Amino acid sequence: MRTLNVNTPSHAYPIFIGHNVYQQPQQTLAPYIGKRAAIISNETVAPLYLPRLQAVLDALGCAYFSIILPDGEAHKNSQTLNMIYDGLMQHRAERNTTLIALGGGVIGDMVGFAAATYQRGAPFVQIPTTLLSQVDSSVGGKTAINHPLGKNMIGAFYQPQAVLADLGSLQTLPAREFSAGMAEVIKYALLGDADFLTWLENNMAALMAQQPDVLAQAVYHCCQMKADIVAQDEKEHGIRAHLNLGHTFGHAIEAEMGYGQWLHGEAVAAGMVLACRLSETLGYLKAADTERVIALLQAANLPVAPPRMPLDKWLAHMQHDKKVQDGQMRFVVLRAFGLADIAGQINTTQLQHALQPYLAA
Amino acid sequence: MRTLNVNTPSHAYPIFIGHNVYQQPQQTLAPYIGKRAAIISNETVAPLYLPRLQAVLDALGCAYFSIILPDGEAHKNSQTLNMIYDGLMQHRAERNTTLIALGGGVIGDMVGFAAATYQRGAPFVQIPTTLLSQVDSSVGGKTAINHPLGKNMIGAFYQPQAVLADLGSLQTLPAREFSAGMAEVIKYALLGDADFLTWLENNMAALMAQQPDVLAQAVYHCCQMKADIVAQDEKEHGIRAHLNLGHTFGHAIEAEMGYGQWLHGEAVAAGMVLACRLSETLGYLKAADTERVIALLQAANLPVAPPRMPLDKWLAHMQHDKKVQDGQMRFVVLRAFGLADIAGQINTTQLQHALQPYLAA
Repeated sequence: MRTLNVNTPSHAYPIFIGHNVYQQPQQTLAPYIGKRAAIISNETVAPLYLPRLQAVLDALGCAYFSIILPDGEAHKNSQTLNMIYDGLMQHRAERNTTLIALGGGVIGDMVGFAAATYQRGAPFVQIPTTLLSQVDSSVGGKTAINHPLGKNMIGAFYQPQAVLADLGSLQTLPAREFSAGMAEVIKYALLGDADFLTWLENNMAALMAQQPDVLAQAVYHCCQMKADIVAQDEKEHGIRAHLNLGHTFGHAIEAEMGYGQWLHGEAVAAGMVLACRLSETLGYLKAADTERVIALLQAANLPVAPPRMPLDKWLAHMQHDKKVQDGQMRFVVLRAFGLADIAGQINTTQLQHALQPYLAA
Repeated sequence: MRTLNVNTPSHAYPIFIGHNVYQQPQQTLAPYIGKRAAIISNETVAPLYLPRLQAVLDALGCAYFSIILPDGEAHKNSQTLNMIYDGLMQHRAERNTTLIALGGGVIGDMVGFAAATYQRGAPFVQIPTTLLSQVDSSVGGKTAINHPLGKNMIGAFYQPQAVLADLGSLQTLPAREFSAGMAEVIKYALLGDADFLTWLENNMAALMAQQPDVLAQAVYHCCQMKADIVAQDEKEHGIRAHLNLGHTFGHAIEAEMGYGQWLHGEAVAAGMVLACRLSETLGYLKAADTERVIALLQAANLPVAPPRMPLDKWLAHMQHDKKVQDGQMRFVVLRAFGLADIAGQINTTQLQHALQPYLAA
């Protein structure tokens, strides 16, 4: 098991990563939960991993109750959030009851938001069970639900007490979801040092086979990058926005197709290809660079092109992006691998050029 | 016009108090709003004060749109909150669009919570139009909506950019609402120095007549007390809880009677009498002290007894209070005027003794 510390201005907390995070609960759980916990999971994850967590809490003498939600991005909304609040109120959860998020990114984002807002802030622990949530969404305190008109539009910055990333839980993850998580791993490789990009290209086959040491190395490296960025810029006033590489395009895909039709990671994969194309349009990347990204995404069985949409649909969705400032869309682009930037002066002609091969007639 | 500064760990901001806060918008508004604002008000306040605010924003060159909500505590819930989110999304409000809360405590609490959570945090300005919101709820960053099972259960600590308390707007306030606000003024007198309590007793008639200087003095004094407390304890880990004097009982009254039947300030008035009775039960206050409080509340035309409820109803409501810890109810009591304390070991017998004259058969 490896331990990483996240130090934000508002709160410091550990991330435990490995195949044995449950075997040392005195270290990984006991210090971070109170006398009572609310375990919040979904219908898919609960049958797999709830009993083990309950046994650990029993052993620690922590009382608990469970709230089981429907599974999927389509349920990351105010109705499901109200199911959490209702369950907390009905079980008389107090301001010091620890909310435990057991599941993937949707569960983590929603439970984090519920914790941020229940009685104006309750403690919470993230137990991410998907690759995407382990490498990205469970770290850094971004919590949110979707609005019908835009993804993650309602939320808060709110840090957990601890994150427990059990790599063993990835063995039950459907292959499509594992690939979706790999999109965020690849994102870190495009944003970070060249060595990690090369390492990832060389180890993608081993990663896809979940070779334990390689998997642990990849998850640790991504969490470390994210922890470094979040420590510098918790509330995304600057460098943290780079982590949205591919996400402006990706969110448009998710919104257009209906939440849950494309997995978030799949939309981000196609979105990163588009961010590369836009970087080409701006004269930053070469076509060969984008081809290298496409090859890596394909090795992870990810889509490398968006669904066909007309330009006005793209524009309509992207004008709801949280990075929009004074009506101006802002995109994360790559000046080179490892050198991201925010482009705030993109005009429609440039966007049309970048999207041209993918537009609907 | 008087100016007070609130300095919390998370944010510092001014409160402008007076009959002329709108006459100096370069000082009171311009520095705190961006290029675009969302004015959020209700059906009662908007016809009275929206046009004046719009004229001021026009003069400042700030673009704006308005969202008008139904009026009343009964609407302080997730449905109305979603009306705010929907309006913000439909008007493409951005992360730097300033939300302006124009109304009383319900509007201020809801808009503050919408601002805390829209795109993970948008700037907001409080323009409280009721006495209660001017002396209490608009200051200090407590934002919330109600849950069907408990008041203010969903919320956040989130500070405004500025607070504009226009005392002139109190002239259109119904007498019952003005009295309700006076309950919070009296609360500050019970919590603070003896001089203010005596001053309030001597000036209650002038206050009820809205004599301008006396009114300004009272609002300023309350805001100053609150600013001092919030600067010491923004997130209510300690002394800030004293501001909940009478509120545990008051929230039970509101929940039992249905939100909006008793005004919040009316419920707090009766709740403060009960807090005094509990303080008597604990041997802290004398009956004569409680009678002094009752006389002051009566001078403000406030209720001094709760509706009749059986003890188990009281207990059921109060066990949902945010101050409950490890199943133990905690009450704000007065060891003496000006000396509040948290009593965490109150048993049912003591509660029954304090409530006895008011219980339903």
